[in-house]
Amino acid sequence: MVIILGIDPGFATVGFGVVSDDAGRLAAMEYGCVTTKKTDGDASIRLGTIYQGITSLIKQYTPAGMAVERLFFARNTTSALQVSEARGVILLAAVHQGIPVIEYTPNQVKIAITGSGKADKRQVQEMITRLLRLQEIPRPDDAADGLSLAVCHLNSTRGLR
Amino acid sequence: MVIILGIDPGFATVGFGVVSDDAGRLAAMEYGCVTTKKTDGDASIRLGTIYQGITSLIKQYTPAGMAVERLFFARNTTSALQVSEARGVILLAAVHQGIPVIEYTPNQVKIAITGSGKADKRQVQEMITRLLRLQEIPRPDDAADGLSLAVCHLNSTRGLR
Repeated sequence: MVIILGIDPGFATVGFGVVSDDAGRLAAMEYGCVTTKKTDGDASIRLGTIYQGITSLIKQYTPAGMAVERLFFARNTTSALQVSEARGVILLAAVHQGIPVIEYTPNQVKIAITGSGKADKRQVQEMITRLLRLQEIPRPDDAADGLSLAVCHLNSTRGLR
Repeated sequence: MVIILGIDPGFATVGFGVVSDDAGRLAAMEYGCVTTKKTDGDASIRLGTIYQGITSLIKQYTPAGMAVERLFFARNTTSALQVSEARGVILLAAVHQGIPVIEYTPNQVKIAITGSGKADKRQVQEMITRLLRLQEIPRPDDAADGLSLAVCHLNSTRGLR
Protein backbone atom coordinates (compact mmCIF):
# COMPACT_ATOMS: atom_id res chain seq x y z
CA MET A 1 0.00 0.00 0.00
CA VAL A 2 1.21 3.48 -0.89
CA ILE A 3 0.08 6.59 1.00
CA ILE A 4 0.37 10.07 -0.49
CA LEU A 5 -0.24 13.43 1.16
CA GLY A 6 -1.74 15.95 -1.26
CA ILE A 7 -1.47 19.65 -0.45
CA ASP A 8 -3.25 22.71 -1.81
CA PRO A 9 -1.06 25.51 -0.42
CA GLY A 10 -2.50 28.64 1.13
CA PHE A 11 -1.80 31.08 3.92
CA ALA A 12 -5.20 31.23 5.66
CA THR A 13 -6.24 27.75 4.47
CA VAL A 14 -4.00 24.84 3.50
CA GLY A 15 -6.07 22.02 2.03
CA PHE A 16 -4.83 18.49 2.53
CA GLY A 17 -5.84 14.98 1.56
CA VAL A 18 -4.27 11.69 2.64
CA VAL A 19 -4.96 8.96 0.10
CA SER A 20 -3.91 5.32 0.14
CA ASP A 21 -3.53 3.13 -2.93
CA ASP A 22 -3.86 -0.59 -2.19
CA ALA A 23 -3.20 -2.39 -5.48
CA GLY A 24 -5.18 0.22 -7.39
CA ARG A 25 -7.92 0.62 -4.81
CA LEU A 26 -7.86 4.24 -3.65
CA ALA A 27 -9.15 5.35 -0.26
CA ALA A 28 -9.27 8.71 1.51
CA MET A 29 -7.71 8.25 4.94
CA GLU A 30 -8.25 11.86 5.99
CA TYR A 31 -8.87 15.26 4.45
CA GLY A 32 -9.39 18.77 5.70
CA CYS A 33 -7.59 22.06 6.19
CA VAL A 34 -4.90 23.63 8.33
CA THR A 35 -6.18 27.13 8.96
CA THR A 36 -4.64 30.33 10.32
CA LYS A 37 -6.25 33.66 11.11
CA LYS A 38 -4.98 37.21 11.32
CA THR A 39 -5.83 37.18 15.01
CA ASP A 40 -3.42 34.25 15.56
CA GLY A 41 -0.48 36.64 15.30
CA ASP A 42 1.93 37.93 12.69
CA ALA A 43 3.02 36.07 9.55
CA SER A 44 5.80 34.14 11.27
CA ILE A 45 3.40 32.74 13.88
CA ARG A 46 0.94 31.67 11.20
CA LEU A 47 3.75 30.01 9.21
CA GLY A 48 4.66 28.14 12.39
CA THR A 49 1.10 26.82 12.65
CA ILE A 50 1.17 25.63 9.03
CA TYR A 51 4.56 23.93 9.47
CA GLN A 52 3.34 22.22 12.63
CA GLY A 53 0.09 21.06 11.04
CA ILE A 54 1.80 19.53 8.02
CA THR A 55 4.52 17.96 10.17
CA SER A 56 1.83 16.30 12.34
CA LEU A 57 0.10 14.85 9.27
CA ILE A 58 3.37 13.40 7.94
CA LYS A 59 4.19 11.89 11.33
CA GLN A 60 0.71 10.41 11.66
CA TYR A 61 0.41 8.83 8.21
CA THR A 62 4.09 8.46 7.14
CA PRO A 63 3.21 9.04 3.48
CA ALA A 64 5.64 7.93 0.74
CA GLY A 65 5.59 11.45 -0.68
CA MET A 66 3.91 14.83 -0.78
CA ALA A 67 2.13 16.07 -3.92
CA VAL A 68 1.89 19.88 -3.95
CA GLU A 69 0.28 22.31 -6.35
CA ARG A 70 2.77 24.40 -8.28
CA LEU A 71 1.98 28.11 -8.31
CA PHE A 72 2.07 30.29 -11.37
CA PHE A 73 1.65 33.98 -11.89
CA ALA A 74 -1.35 35.19 -9.98
CA ARG A 75 -3.35 38.33 -10.50
CA ASN A 76 -3.34 39.20 -6.85
CA THR A 77 0.40 39.31 -6.35
CA THR A 78 0.39 40.11 -2.64
CA SER A 79 -1.65 37.01 -2.02
CA ALA A 80 0.65 34.95 -4.29
CA LEU A 81 3.64 36.06 -2.22
CA GLN A 82 1.90 35.00 1.00
CA VAL A 83 0.89 31.65 -0.44
CA SER A 84 4.51 31.16 -1.51
CA GLU A 85 5.71 31.80 2.04
CA ALA A 86 3.31 29.09 3.20
CA ARG A 87 4.51 26.84 0.40
CA GLY A 88 8.07 27.34 1.64
CA VAL A 89 7.31 26.00 5.12
CA ILE A 90 5.18 23.16 3.68
CA LEU A 91 8.11 22.00 1.52
CA LEU A 92 10.39 22.39 4.53
CA ALA A 93 8.14 20.15 6.65
CA ALA A 94 8.48 17.45 3.96
CA VAL A 95 12.26 17.70 3.80
CA HIS A 96 12.53 17.71 7.61
CA GLN A 97 10.48 14.49 7.74
CA GLY A 98 12.50 12.99 4.90
CA ILE A 99 9.75 12.58 2.30
CA PRO A 100 10.06 13.61 -1.35
CA VAL A 101 7.99 16.45 -2.81
CA ILE A 102 6.36 16.17 -6.23
CA GLU A 103 4.84 19.27 -7.83
CA TYR A 104 1.88 19.31 -10.21
CA THR A 105 0.28 22.14 -12.13
CA PRO A 106 -3.50 22.58 -11.90
CA ASN A 107 -3.69 21.34 -15.48
CA GLN A 108 -1.77 18.17 -14.75
CA VAL A 109 -4.17 17.47 -11.89
CA LYS A 110 -7.23 17.91 -14.12
CA ILE A 111 -5.81 15.61 -16.78
CA ALA A 112 -4.73 12.93 -14.30
CA ILE A 113 -8.18 12.83 -12.71
CA THR A 114 -10.66 13.50 -15.52
CA GLY A 115 -8.56 12.81 -18.61
CA SER A 116 -9.11 16.37 -19.82
CA GLY A 117 -7.38 19.68 -19.14
CA LYS A 118 -10.69 21.41 -19.84
CA ALA A 119 -12.57 19.92 -16.89
CA ASP A 120 -13.95 22.48 -14.45
CA LYS A 121 -13.57 22.40 -10.67
CA ARG A 122 -16.93 20.68 -10.19
CA GLN A 123 -16.11 17.89 -12.64
CA VAL A 124 -12.80 17.23 -10.90
CA GLN A 125 -14.57 17.11 -7.54
CA GLU A 126 -17.24 14.71 -8.80
CA MET A 127 -14.59 12.41 -10.21
CA ILE A 128 -12.65 12.51 -6.93
CA THR A 129 -15.84 11.66 -5.05
CA ARG A 130 -16.42 8.65 -7.30
CA LEU A 131 -12.81 7.45 -7.32
CA LEU A 132 -12.62 7.57 -3.54
CA ARG A 133 -16.20 6.26 -3.11
CA LEU A 134 -17.12 9.17 -0.83
CA GLN A 135 -20.73 9.81 0.21
CA GLU A 136 -20.57 13.40 -0.97
CA ILE A 137 -18.24 15.94 -2.56
CA PRO A 138 -15.53 16.76 -0.02
CA ARG A 139 -15.75 20.22 1.54
CA PRO A 140 -14.29 22.77 1.57
CA ASP A 141 -12.80 23.14 -1.93
CA ASP A 142 -9.29 23.30 -0.47
CA ALA A 143 -9.66 19.84 1.08
CA ALA A 144 -11.04 18.48 -2.21
CA ASP A 145 -8.01 20.01 -3.95
CA GLY A 146 -5.69 18.31 -1.45
CA LEU A 147 -7.32 14.96 -2.26
CA SER A 148 -7.05 15.74 -5.99
CA LEU A 149 -3.31 16.33 -5.71
CA ALA A 150 -2.81 13.01 -3.94
CA VAL A 151 -4.97 11.11 -6.45
CA CYS A 152 -3.19 12.88 -9.33
CA HIS A 153 0.14 11.61 -8.07
CA LEU A 154 -1.14 8.07 -7.47
CA ASN A 155 -2.76 7.90 -10.91
CA SER A 156 0.29 9.40 -12.65
CA THR A 157 2.75 6.99 -11.11
CA ARG A 158 0.75 3.73 -11.00
CA GLY A 159 2.69 2.11 -13.83
CA LEU A 160 5.99 3.19 -12.28
CA ARG A 161 5.61 1.60 -8.88
CA MET B 1 24.01 45.65 24.25
CA VAL B 2 21.39 44.75 21.65
CA ILE B 3 22.10 42.39 18.77
CA ILE B 4 19.95 42.34 15.62
CA LEU B 5 20.06 39.92 12.70
CA GLY B 6 19.28 41.65 9.40
CA ILE B 7 18.15 39.53 6.46
CA ASP B 8 17.90 40.23 2.74
CA PRO B 9 15.78 37.27 1.59
CA GLY B 10 16.60 35.30 -1.55
CA PHE B 11 16.48 31.77 -2.86
CA ALA B 12 20.00 31.37 -4.28
CA THR B 13 21.50 34.00 -1.96
CA VAL B 14 20.23 35.11 1.44
CA GLY B 15 22.23 38.10 2.67
CA PHE B 16 22.67 38.51 6.40
CA GLY B 17 24.27 40.95 8.81
CA VAL B 18 24.62 40.64 12.57
CA VAL B 19 24.96 44.07 14.18
CA SER B 20 25.39 44.98 17.83
CA ASP B 21 24.43 48.29 19.41
CA ASP B 22 26.31 49.09 22.59
CA ALA B 23 24.89 52.36 23.89
CA GLY B 24 24.69 53.76 20.37
CA ARG B 25 28.00 52.33 19.18
CA LEU B 26 27.22 50.00 16.29
CA ALA B 27 29.46 47.10 15.29
CA ALA B 28 29.21 44.41 12.62
CA MET B 29 29.68 41.06 14.34
CA GLU B 30 29.37 39.05 11.15
CA TYR B 31 27.98 39.39 7.66
CA GLY B 32 27.77 37.23 4.57
CA CYS B 33 25.38 35.01 2.65
CA VAL B 34 23.64 31.67 2.92
CA THR B 35 23.76 30.32 -0.61
CA THR B 36 22.03 27.46 -2.43
CA LYS B 37 22.57 26.13 -5.94
CA LYS B 38 20.39 24.23 -8.39
CA THR B 39 22.82 21.33 -8.13
CA ASP B 40 22.12 21.09 -4.36
CA GLY B 41 18.79 19.45 -5.11
CA ASP B 42 15.17 20.45 -5.55
CA ALA B 43 13.45 23.44 -3.98
CA SER B 44 12.66 21.69 -0.70
CA ILE B 45 16.33 20.73 -0.18
CA ARG B 46 17.44 24.31 -0.86
CA LEU B 47 14.81 25.65 1.56
CA GLY B 48 16.19 23.24 4.15
CA THR B 49 19.67 24.71 3.68
CA ILE B 50 18.34 28.25 4.13
CA TYR B 51 16.37 27.32 7.26
CA GLN B 52 19.43 25.59 8.72
CA GLY B 53 21.75 28.51 7.92
CA ILE B 54 19.47 31.09 9.54
CA THR B 55 18.81 28.85 12.54
CA SER B 56 22.57 28.48 13.10
CA LEU B 57 23.06 32.26 13.01
CA ILE B 58 20.29 32.80 15.56
CA LYS B 59 21.71 30.11 17.86
CA GLN B 60 25.22 31.54 17.57
CA TYR B 61 24.40 35.22 18.20
CA THR B 62 21.04 35.02 20.08
CA PRO B 63 19.84 38.30 18.53
CA ALA B 64 16.97 40.22 20.15
CA GLY B 65 15.13 40.22 16.83
CA MET B 66 15.28 39.68 13.10
CA ALA B 67 14.84 42.56 10.66
CA VAL B 68 13.70 41.33 7.23
CA GLU B 69 13.05 43.11 3.98
CA ARG B 70 9.41 43.18 3.01
CA LEU B 71 8.73 42.16 -0.58
CA PHE B 72 6.47 44.00 -2.95
CA PHE B 73 5.27 43.30 -6.45
CA ALA B 74 8.18 42.28 -8.58
CA ARG B 75 8.47 42.29 -12.34
CA ASN B 76 9.88 38.80 -12.41
CA THR B 77 7.03 37.04 -10.68
CA THR B 78 8.49 33.54 -10.78
CA SER B 79 11.54 34.80 -8.94
CA ALA B 80 9.33 36.70 -6.47
CA LEU B 81 7.45 33.47 -5.66
CA GLN B 82 10.74 31.64 -5.03
CA VAL B 83 12.06 34.44 -2.83
CA SER B 84 8.79 34.29 -0.90
CA GLU B 85 9.24 30.57 -0.28
CA ALA B 86 12.68 31.35 1.13
CA ARG B 87 11.17 34.17 3.16
CA GLY B 88 8.69 31.69 4.61
CA VAL B 89 11.39 29.40 6.00
CA ILE B 90 13.44 32.40 7.24
CA LEU B 91 10.45 33.68 9.25
CA LEU B 92 9.85 30.12 10.49
CA ALA B 93 13.45 29.87 11.73
CA ALA B 94 12.85 33.04 13.76
CA VAL B 95 9.61 31.80 15.29
CA HIS B 96 11.16 28.39 16.07
CA GLN B 97 14.01 30.13 17.92
CA GLY B 98 11.57 32.44 19.68
CA ILE B 99 12.74 35.80 18.32
CA PRO B 100 10.43 38.50 16.94
CA VAL B 101 10.46 39.46 13.26
CA ILE B 102 10.28 43.08 12.16
CA GLU B 103 9.71 43.90 8.50
CA TYR B 104 10.99 46.97 6.66
CA THR B 105 10.40 48.18 3.14
CA PRO B 106 13.46 49.12 1.02
CA ASN B 107 12.38 52.74 1.38
CA GLN B 108 12.25 52.58 5.17
CA VAL B 109 15.78 51.17 5.13
CA LYS B 110 17.07 54.00 2.94
CA ILE B 111 15.48 56.64 5.13
CA ALA B 112 16.69 55.09 8.40
CA ILE B 113 20.27 54.93 7.13
CA THR B 114 20.75 57.98 4.90
CA GLY B 115 17.85 60.18 5.96
CA SER B 116 16.50 60.15 2.40
CA GLY B 117 14.25 57.76 0.47
CA LYS B 118 16.01 58.90 -2.70
CA ALA B 119 19.44 57.51 -1.79
CA ASP B 120 20.81 54.95 -4.23
CA LYS B 121 22.29 51.57 -3.33
CA ARG B 122 25.84 52.94 -3.35
CA GLN B 123 25.00 55.78 -0.96
CA VAL B 124 23.34 53.36 1.46
CA GLN B 125 26.39 51.09 1.33
CA GLU B 126 28.81 53.97 1.93
CA MET B 127 26.80 55.10 4.92
CA ILE B 128 26.71 51.54 6.30
CA THR B 129 30.49 51.30 5.87
CA ARG B 130 30.95 54.54 7.80
CA LEU B 131 28.41 53.76 10.53
CA LEU B 132 29.97 50.35 11.17
CA ARG B 133 33.54 51.67 10.70
CA LEU B 134 34.35 48.98 8.15
CA GLN B 135 37.54 49.09 6.10
CA GLU B 136 35.62 48.79 2.84
CA ILE B 137 32.11 48.45 1.46
CA PRO B 138 30.78 45.03 2.47
CA ARG B 139 30.50 42.51 -0.36
CA PRO B 140 28.42 41.07 -1.90
CA ASP B 141 25.47 43.46 -2.11
CA ASP B 142 23.22 40.92 -0.36
CA ALA B 143 25.45 40.94 2.73
CA ALA B 144 25.52 44.76 2.69
CA ASP B 145 21.72 44.69 2.49
CA GLY B 146 21.58 42.32 5.47
CA LEU B 147 23.70 44.77 7.48
CA SER B 148 21.47 47.65 6.29
CA LEU B 149 18.35 45.91 7.56
CA ALA B 150 19.92 45.38 10.99
CA VAL B 151 21.17 49.00 11.20
CA CYS B 152 17.77 50.24 10.00
CA HIS B 153 16.08 48.46 12.89
CA LEU B 154 18.63 49.64 15.46
CA ASN B 155 18.41 53.25 14.25
CA SER B 156 14.60 53.19 14.08
CA THR B 157 14.16 51.86 17.60
CA ARG B 158 16.96 53.61 19.49
CA GLY B 159 14.62 55.99 21.31
CA LEU B 160 12.30 53.14 22.21
CA ARG B 161 14.73 50.90 24.01
